[in-house]
Amino acid sequence: MKIGILGAGNVSLTIAGKLLEYENNVMISSRDLNAKKDKGVMGMLPSPKEWKEEMETKGLSAETGSFADAAEFGQVLFNCLNGVASIEVLGQIPGSTLADKILIDIANPLDFSRGMPPSLTVCNTNSLGEQIQELLPATKVVKTLNTVTASLMVNPGFLAEDHTVFLAGNDRSSKSWVETVLLREWFGWKNVIDLGTIEAARGTEMYLALWVRMMAALKISNFNIKIIKPGIQESGR
Amino acid sequence: MKIGILGAGNVSLTIAGKLLEYENNVMISSRDLNAKKDKGVMGMLPSPKEWKEEMETKGLSAETGSFADAAEFGQVLFNCLNGVASIEVLGQIPGSTLADKILIDIANPLDFSRGMPPSLTVCNTNSLGEQIQELLPATKVVKTLNTVTASLMVNPGFLAEDHTVFLAGNDRSSKSWVETVLLREWFGWKNVIDLGTIEAARGTEMYLALWVRMMAALKISNFNIKIIKPGIQESGR
Repeated sequence: MKIGILGAGNVSLTIAGKLLEYENNVMISSRDLNAKKDKGVMGMLPSPKEWKEEMETKGLSAETGSFADAAEFGQVLFNCLNGVASIEVLGQIPGSTLADKILIDIANPLDFSRGMPPSLTVCNTNSLGEQIQELLPATKVVKTLNTVTASLMVNPGFLAEDHTVFLAGNDRSSKSWVETVLLREWFGWKNVIDLGTIEAARGTEMYLALWVRMMAALKISNFNIKIIKPGIQESGR
Repeated sequence: MKIGILGAGNVSLTIAGKLLEYENNVMISSRDLNAKKDKGVMGMLPSPKEWKEEMETKGLSAETGSFADAAEFGQVLFNCLNGVASIEVLGQIPGSTLADKILIDIANPLDFSRGMPPSLTVCNTNSLGEQIQELLPATKVVKTLNTVTASLMVNPGFLAEDHTVFLAGNDRSSKSWVETVLLREWFGWKNVIDLGTIEAARGTEMYLALWVRMMAALKISNFNIKIIKPGIQESGR
């Protein structure tokens, strides 16, 4: 499958690398294909061009391009841009390029302007997922994976026990493909909860306010939550 | 210990009943001690007076009074009022009555005026926990237990596995008492995470936006989340 990824940062490269393992054709995208990104303690990320060469040495066929190129290229698209940039970049791509395609929105509308921990640029009575769906009414927006760090998105088995990922979106068949093929088959998730329409993106985005504080308390970012229900004997109550 | 509970609803009665098992003297409080509450599908709650009589037939010594009575009575206080009422009621109690006492804030600032699921009346750059701490600077506000349904607050063992409860507050020794005595010894919690100052109430209150949608998807309210970390072999990474 041809998959276009909006972004070329840590989340984009992590997801692209995993998708390439399943014989997909993947294009990552950036304003500047020669720019390396400094991720602080996480080190330097390769530029898109360097990353493409690295993939080619592994025999994997990866592409690079502009945001518009990736949107045109992909049968399925990922939004891995930061929250603030998402609306601006998506608004510059012709809606017809994006029509009828699944857009998997992984972004969080984090506002770092007040320092750490970040707040959200939109929340409570709206969400980034809903804003994107409103901007692109003919696109099938599915919000998922925004509640875990990049490495866990494609390798949930790294944690000691099963844990939970959420889905929100208006189009049932798109959510079904995302759950069955992308999350379960390719990425290895076992515990997927569909929270309903894209409005439920408010829930998974606002959870970030708890996530950033758990990260600070636990001093790790590769953790997640698991839903615990009543025991088998009591589950009918 | 003498414990005053602001409120006489389901959360108040659940917590009061558990505290009475540990030889505490407990006062619940309400505007009207004769009013029963209709909890819809959960049935009718007894009036405070009926509840007191019910406890007395079990040989447990419970008290009822006004909000000011409960604030005066308790060495430790619980805010089990609804979020919208909390600031109004606490603002009418003389601050000197509340000074130096631990106030355990269980309330969530839920706004049902737009229908279900509720939004929050305050969030993102502030929280109900912070508003209460600001209103009562001499009181030791500890936010906890607001992320689970009433029955689980005092009976976490009902679920199939261990799960997590959070703490936020400015006073370390107050949080230590709440964690050690209240949560672990009396209520039976094994997994308690201290998220830091009362500012972290933003995290646990905003999580409600996810909680209400999980409740709708799971069709139960007696669930909770457990933090899952990397396996033992990888935990140093």
